[in-house]
Amino acid sequence: MGKNEPKLSIIPLGGIGEIGKNMFVIKFEEEILIIDSGLIFPEEEMLGIDIVIPDITYLVENKDKIKGIVLTHGHEDHIGALPYVLQQISAPLYGTKLTLGLVEGKLKEHRLRRNIELNVVTPPCSANIGVFKVDFIRVNHSIPDAVGLAIHTPAGTIVHTGDFKLDQTPVDGRITDIHKFAELGKQGVLVLMSDSTNSEREGYTMSEKVVGYTIQDIFRKARGRILVATFASNVHRIQQIFEAAEKFERKVTVVGRSMINVVNIAIDLGYLKIPNDILVELDDINKLPLDKIVIITTGSQGEPMSALTRMAMSEHKKVDIVPGDTVLIAATPIPGNERTVGRTIDHLFKQGAEVIYESISGVHVSGHASQEELKLMINLTRPKYFIPIHGEYRHLVHHAQLAQELGIPEENIFIAENGLIMEFSKKAARIAGKVTSGKVMVDGLGVGDVGNIVLRDRKQLSQDGILIVVITLDKQKAEVVAGPDIISRGFVYVRESEKLMEESKERVKQALIKCQGKNMTEWSTIKTHVRDSLANFLYEKTRRRPMILPIIMEI
Amino acid sequence: MGKNEPKLSIIPLGGIGEIGKNMFVIKFEEEILIIDSGLIFPEEEMLGIDIVIPDITYLVENKDKIKGIVLTHGHEDHIGALPYVLQQISAPLYGTKLTLGLVEGKLKEHRLRRNIELNVVTPPCSANIGVFKVDFIRVNHSIPDAVGLAIHTPAGTIVHTGDFKLDQTPVDGRITDIHKFAELGKQGVLVLMSDSTNSEREGYTMSEKVVGYTIQDIFRKARGRILVATFASNVHRIQQIFEAAEKFERKVTVVGRSMINVVNIAIDLGYLKIPNDILVELDDINKLPLDKIVIITTGSQGEPMSALTRMAMSEHKKVDIVPGDTVLIAATPIPGNERTVGRTIDHLFKQGAEVIYESISGVHVSGHASQEELKLMINLTRPKYFIPIHGEYRHLVHHAQLAQELGIPEENIFIAENGLIMEFSKKAARIAGKVTSGKVMVDGLGVGDVGNIVLRDRKQLSQDGILIVVITLDKQKAEVVAGPDIISRGFVYVRESEKLMEESKERVKQALIKCQGKNMTEWSTIKTHVRDSLANFLYEKTRRRPMILPIIMEI
Repeated sequence: MGKNEPKLSIIPLGGIGEIGKNMFVIKFEEEILIIDSGLIFPEEEMLGIDIVIPDITYLVENKDKIKGIVLTHGHEDHIGALPYVLQQISAPLYGTKLTLGLVEGKLKEHRLRRNIELNVVTPPCSANIGVFKVDFIRVNHSIPDAVGLAIHTPAGTIVHTGDFKLDQTPVDGRITDIHKFAELGKQGVLVLMSDSTNSEREGYTMSEKVVGYTIQDIFRKARGRILVATFASNVHRIQQIFEAAEKFERKVTVVGRSMINVVNIAIDLGYLKIPNDILVELDDINKLPLDKIVIITTGSQGEPMSALTRMAMSEHKKVDIVPGDTVLIAATPIPGNERTVGRTIDHLFKQGAEVIYESISGVHVSGHASQEELKLMINLTRPKYFIPIHGEYRHLVHHAQLAQELGIPEENIFIAENGLIMEFSKKAARIAGKVTSGKVMVDGLGVGDVGNIVLRDRKQLSQDGILIVVITLDKQKAEVVAGPDIISRGFVYVRESEKLMEESKERVKQALIKCQGKNMTEWSTIKTHVRDSLANFLYEKTRRRPMILPIIMEI
Repeated sequence: MGKNEPKLSIIPLGGIGEIGKNMFVIKFEEEILIIDSGLIFPEEEMLGIDIVIPDITYLVENKDKIKGIVLTHGHEDHIGALPYVLQQISAPLYGTKLTLGLVEGKLKEHRLRRNIELNVVTPPCSANIGVFKVDFIRVNHSIPDAVGLAIHTPAGTIVHTGDFKLDQTPVDGRITDIHKFAELGKQGVLVLMSDSTNSEREGYTMSEKVVGYTIQDIFRKARGRILVATFASNVHRIQQIFEAAEKFERKVTVVGRSMINVVNIAIDLGYLKIPNDILVELDDINKLPLDKIVIITTGSQGEPMSALTRMAMSEHKKVDIVPGDTVLIAATPIPGNERTVGRTIDHLFKQGAEVIYESISGVHVSGHASQEELKLMINLTRPKYFIPIHGEYRHLVHHAQLAQELGIPEENIFIAENGLIMEFSKKAARIAGKVTSGKVMVDGLGVGDVGNIVLRDRKQLSQDGILIVVITLDKQKAEVVAGPDIISRGFVYVRESEKLMEESKERVKQALIKCQGKNMTEWSTIKTHVRDSLANFLYEKTRRRPMILPIIMEI
């Protein structure tokens, strides 16, 4: 790359090698544009962690250069980290009406609303943000008002698809703006960053309309009450449920905090268009005949505290499942949720409901482009360089293979990693180093105060529990004046373990005598000795390795 | 049911409403026959638990009536509980050669081999076990030598399919004995108990041969080394890997403890037929050119300690993944394992391997019958009563619906639950009560010593850790002579929390002063007071609820 050529860099802080916590930095000379600020849900090993957000050390260090944050749509993996990010950096936000509506609710909850500039964009449109001219391009996704981006810089144009699919028959009639992508391709695209979530899937992703047909089929056949669980943010699917209810002359009520929240925002902002009087309160709908009732609810992922799960377990205050109910789960389990979803379905069947779910086709379609759509996007935009984004490593690899099949040379494709600085000019591209990146764990009010040691301890505690050995020593006489006492939690039933505990105490006493014999006086040595001898004894007796915590009190 | 009519009962102790820990009791008058003794792997909430086995209280109470244990095949969910069961009851075992070969290894490991009568059966054949005449009927499954059963009793014949599919082109050429099932149907079947695992799947399950074709395709294309991960017990699939290796002139080595174990047993007993000299040691195969090497390995489920996972993480002692390797994962993730499998695939790609897995069809076929096969089984055997078995509740419901479609009246179908006594005569059937049944958790050497309280503690410990508050009191003077000291584990980084810990101590001190002021002398009251006030303080500060354990030492 020429020494004096202006430098354009793309730096992912999240969303590469993972599906979630999407955050990309575009830097031209001394100006920074941020795309999205998402969260990701914790992995199984992250015990007790609520959410995970990107490490933004790099942004904090370059605070003054940030010109704006552009949001592609309102899903948690694109806006969920904003309340945390905006405590450390400040910048004007750009997004569509629904996206910013959802962001506003989130900021209010975190008491962060003041002083944040929210710029509503209505595609097709452009905004000048510092040196960057950003075009907002309508795309189809599983939430309305999603956009892709064209970011024009002096070094060339970057196209970022956001999360997208090509729905030829979208519920709101507004298709992905393929003309704009075609036009950009004609003008010349330097870099394409494209959604890789479904890069393993052959063919095309089905239209959301297909789910509408399935819903109508189910409404046609149902004799009793109908309950539909789906993702709260899938406003178009909710629209289709309302349309079916209208057609089959049923009233609708909405249950579950996040579902009520999104439905209210979507109605207020005009994204959900429903007939007068169709929406009624839960208390009122219970007065209607069963075959006049539709309940839209959260819980499509079998979440333990969600409305549908509580209904299935007969723990919901106002809704009991009764024989004759039809329950439609209009969603597929997100990987990792298969068991909880299965359990919810089992309980619904036990209550006598007819349950319609994944095993029947057409109850759910994806919001992400499959291989044929991904290829079309590449062919439309004809980029010089290609960065597959929004995917686990295997998805990026598959997407890269597609791009190669279409003639993009291997050396122009970047299978990146978070933190990597990719530098571009009109003529060349290179890896120019790394910035700090990673996972920041949020647990309650604590952001980043839980690390590997804490997690390792939680893991050990979760497997075999803890034994606490308390000994009180007289400092002067150096002798035990109380204890050893042993208290256990999460180790074994106390009733079953009396003898084991007595033997354990005896083992600790012997260890202490040995310490005295060897003239050990360092507490840390005594503690280690007690811990090891008790650990060996317990492993021999039980094949378990509880955490052992010797505590010496000195008087 | 007539008062004096002889009583035939079927009592499931496991395998109803779950896929695993299969165990069915057949009782005629005062004689008992047991079918299978399986384990199930713990649910996510069962922290630290290794395996779960059926509660056999009922069998222990009726020890003297037990005439035998019949095993349908050698999978863990059918034989895995035997080492525990045989410590509490004794009975002769009946099974095919491979099944008992696997059982023997298991008993040896638990040092239980002596005094257990092992009866090898070779279908088609029968055995008289007490009053029961049991026919062993060959069925296809994902392990060789699987059988279904016909149990002839004075009250009528029970057919139990075991786990089965109808493979028209099985690898060993021996198809499910459909003639026998047809003959039984002609003679008259009182009760059919049939495998429900795949009752949600339409059509037919594909033949194991399909996987063989996929394997050959992959071998044809591969330029470098080939690694294949699959279930150790799927001997026919392993056979097909050897056949492909022979065809494409490669040598084979086997890696991973359970894979080596099963391959050795299968070769010894004649289930795996391999050409001379094709099998070589791992150390020797590394001397060959890469395009002459096949490695068969464990780890198809992404298990953390398995050979393939360690290779993917560059932690295997003898095998490193190198660019040019082809890795075939000839399995689908068992529900719950999706994330770990995905992670293994990602790491393999990162090491430069070409990975072929689930997203490409034909890498795995199920061992269980789909709907058309299930219907055929019902039509062949034409039972009077039908009990869907081996399935979660939703699978049983779907299987029952299939049976109804074929004309079995609803009242003759039992969607049962574990512990239920189903009583049959030639003329009638009824629910005759319940016996003790349930889940016994095994943790290390402890069988059943971990219960709900221990699990609840482990859960709390895993979420937010523990704080231990130690106070030493002088009994006479009733005053604090040492402490309060606070130790935490799994709660928060110590570095980050110094101030929080100081404030916590202060809070405890205040609580103790309050106790003195109110003249509280009961330790339990003091402890509760300390716990509550510290818990409130910490929740307010951190929104976390660690376990708080106040310990009072008395001198």
